[in-house]
Amino acid sequence: LNSQPSPEESLDPQDWDAFRDLAHHMLDDMLDYQQQVRERLVWQPVPAEVKAFLKRPLPQQPQSHQQVYQDFVENVLPYPMGNIHPRFWGWVMGNGTPFAAMAELLAATMNPNMGGGDHGANYVEIQVVDWLKEMFRYPAEASGLLVSGASMANLVGLTVARNTLAGYDIRQKGLRAGQRQMVLYASQEVHSCVHKAAELLGLGREALRLIPVKQNFEMDLAALERAIAADRADGFQPFCVVGTAGTVNTGALDDLQGIAEICEREGLWFHVDGAIGAVAILAPEVRGCVEGLQRSDSMALDLHKWMYMPFEAGCVLVRSEPAHRNAFSLTPEYLAHAERGLAAGNLWFSDYGLQLTRGFRALKVWMSLKEHGVQKFGRMIRQNMAQAQYLKQQVEASPRLEVMAPVPLNIVCFRYNPGGMDEQMLNRLNQELLIRLHESGIAVPSSTTLHDCYCLRAAITNHRSRREDFEILVQACERLGGEVVAEWLGKAALTR
Amino acid sequence: LNSQPSPEESLDPQDWDAFRDLAHHMLDDMLDYQQQVRERLVWQPVPAEVKAFLKRPLPQQPQSHQQVYQDFVENVLPYPMGNIHPRFWGWVMGNGTPFAAMAELLAATMNPNMGGGDHGANYVEIQVVDWLKEMFRYPAEASGLLVSGASMANLVGLTVARNTLAGYDIRQKGLRAGQRQMVLYASQEVHSCVHKAAELLGLGREALRLIPVKQNFEMDLAALERAIAADRADGFQPFCVVGTAGTVNTGALDDLQGIAEICEREGLWFHVDGAIGAVAILAPEVRGCVEGLQRSDSMALDLHKWMYMPFEAGCVLVRSEPAHRNAFSLTPEYLAHAERGLAAGNLWFSDYGLQLTRGFRALKVWMSLKEHGVQKFGRMIRQNMAQAQYLKQQVEASPRLEVMAPVPLNIVCFRYNPGGMDEQMLNRLNQELLIRLHESGIAVPSSTTLHDCYCLRAAITNHRSRREDFEILVQACERLGGEVVAEWLGKAALTR
Repeated sequence: LNSQPSPEESLDPQDWDAFRDLAHHMLDDMLDYQQQVRERLVWQPVPAEVKAFLKRPLPQQPQSHQQVYQDFVENVLPYPMGNIHPRFWGWVMGNGTPFAAMAELLAATMNPNMGGGDHGANYVEIQVVDWLKEMFRYPAEASGLLVSGASMANLVGLTVARNTLAGYDIRQKGLRAGQRQMVLYASQEVHSCVHKAAELLGLGREALRLIPVKQNFEMDLAALERAIAADRADGFQPFCVVGTAGTVNTGALDDLQGIAEICEREGLWFHVDGAIGAVAILAPEVRGCVEGLQRSDSMALDLHKWMYMPFEAGCVLVRSEPAHRNAFSLTPEYLAHAERGLAAGNLWFSDYGLQLTRGFRALKVWMSLKEHGVQKFGRMIRQNMAQAQYLKQQVEASPRLEVMAPVPLNIVCFRYNPGGMDEQMLNRLNQELLIRLHESGIAVPSSTTLHDCYCLRAAITNHRSRREDFEILVQACERLGGEVVAEWLGKAALTR
Repeated sequence: LNSQPSPEESLDPQDWDAFRDLAHHMLDDMLDYQQQVRERLVWQPVPAEVKAFLKRPLPQQPQSHQQVYQDFVENVLPYPMGNIHPRFWGWVMGNGTPFAAMAELLAATMNPNMGGGDHGANYVEIQVVDWLKEMFRYPAEASGLLVSGASMANLVGLTVARNTLAGYDIRQKGLRAGQRQMVLYASQEVHSCVHKAAELLGLGREALRLIPVKQNFEMDLAALERAIAADRADGFQPFCVVGTAGTVNTGALDDLQGIAEICEREGLWFHVDGAIGAVAILAPEVRGCVEGLQRSDSMALDLHKWMYMPFEAGCVLVRSEPAHRNAFSLTPEYLAHAERGLAAGNLWFSDYGLQLTRGFRALKVWMSLKEHGVQKFGRMIRQNMAQAQYLKQQVEASPRLEVMAPVPLNIVCFRYNPGGMDEQMLNRLNQELLIRLHESGIAVPSSTTLHDCYCLRAAITNHRSRREDFEILVQACERLGGEVVAEWLGKAALTR
């Protein structure tokens, strides 16, 4: 059939041999790009002419594969975010790996829809979820789903909590049919995606009670207990506590054992946002810091952060498979499952979340866990934590830098402080310093504000970083901070 | 720095040359796999030994790249879902293309986080969204976001509708603070993801009023108007009508002009689920069938369906950028935007949806639209619609097959009916026929149930299908249907 002439068109290449040549060329470029990443600047601004090129109208006519690739090479490839570089520590982002990038090619070639059914890719996802249950010490009968990231994983976990503990058919009747306003608890340091989830679920942001934190940015559990008691007295319906295993600001770890006990006593759902720090469980030397994680009812994970997977790779685990399924399952006639054939199989992932069509994100996780073995991930996590301590020491050793928060995990908040400046001036100085760091291309931390102090913030989820990279960061901060101060003093002298 | 010895480990290949050789070998395999797809069976069941292989515990130690790839080649690659094959028409799924698969490799190599900021990939997504606005005749100042698929796109659109029309700060206060129960409308044929969205948003499935359809499965607009009036009289708060541009069961197209007029008159948000049929707008000969689409307030699209992109590639468009932003924007201190540096730029995609971390799904769309030009997509869509009519004619011409619903778009519902069987028996017969079709590997339609009749259902969103493929399907149905009947008659004779 393949050679039969046909008047019909397809989107396949007309000249497969030429396409194959180009594809190999593209692959070599991509391997070079990863192999040589350390030799390049971390980040550079996107030039105006590139922005203009990317404003042209919708293409009506075809371009050659070569031309399209060339457009990519000239206008996109040179202006990366930078997070694959060894000196990128902004926000909390993994790097990806060359093997996982190849896995994405394999996944897009097979291009299965992971909604459900009897095909190989679905068994890969089942295995990956089983492996994650094993890694995070969940029972074998627990349930899980790969999702886009922790925003979605938290939303799924909180939806299961809401639907399970409402006490009536909330899926059918909605929130207004309940007797009381449902409320949930998290620390003031909880990630904004939990705020967004409370909004989306119709609870409203006021229903998310933000519990104060202690000096080390952990949730104050005495305050949590008082808040629950006050809400019960006031006629609210507490249903869930969100514990954070690694806050986004400072990497603070809530006392998960303590929260688990409160939730058991109070009959509340215990959800853990483990996006940032849950994987510390893989490093034997440090896993005590997330003890209690395994007692949660649901857990959000982000494998594209500290498991170094390319985007997107989040996961939600739910201890009770029936609760998970009952919160989402809905099988219309056109999705009827079958006894045999492609529509066979008991596991339809679409019964466990929002997406019906789902991509094969499991493959990169599967191939990466096999490639390295989980023990190596434990070593890498430990390595990043040691690097955080090393950076902290370097900052402490510098006369002009200061550490701004405890470093329990892999996040270091610090600032440049030459002395003699008020807080407002220091904030402006460090804002300018961060921008110059970015513009220099030397290193990319990001920022946060702690107790009104603007800080540089390095979140070390980077398998390519080495100790010397942190020395380079500290030296650059000292030099660029000094330059800004000198300029400001110069300007002040001129205007005096 | 690259050559400096270091005690620190990374996840990069230790032997780049060997890795490069393997990567090229993988690429050749993937190109062969796509080039030769027509020569293989569409689908085959996953053997028990493969399922057993995919149940082994979490790997502790590393395996070689070769071994991991070999495991993939032996246990995953031979058992595809089948949707890249020319004779796959199950559910509604695109195929992907070789060039888009390469785009996924490029995207995973750069691995940017598309949350926001000043880097090349973000401008690619802005351009793709602009192109989609142009394709679907939305104003230039409209807003949009690439998402995992139409389930998410519908959820985002309905969230904007809910938050915009609540009449109070629903994000802060939640649904219970409203004066009245908010309700929305869609036809009985609306996709299940809209049911799920109503549940998730806390409205409850009862708040989704399912309007009856006419004989051709389009929403009955007179019934819609009656339902809105009755709800207003009963103290409910109507806020949105969901029109469907191509239902999942039969491809029926709601009267979008009519719905637009009702929404304008009633002050309701007009959301279109265009996942299945909105792209008909690209084919000049047929675009009249989705006229009115451009009058909607928001629109859900699925580029991994009838735009043939690999999974995942959905999109939501929202006419009012401020409404879109106001429904989702939330910028905590650790995401502070900046004047210069990487955190610069006005467009933070995380302000427009649920995801904060977002993958570079824009690249495959960008490269594919440049590769083919939008006019070719129009021709492909037209080609699939012509193939649907051809299949309908073939079914009509067969003495033992019958068409079960109108074919306005690209979906054909039909069944095997040898005569003399009651409906229950016909349902069982066609269930068995579908399974045997799958097991034969000849073709993969899926199924649905219309007016209690189980039907085979071919949704033609396949750029590789040719006319002869539909002839093969019809012949296989006749042959396998006859075999089932003969077996059943034989068994009946034996037991008599």
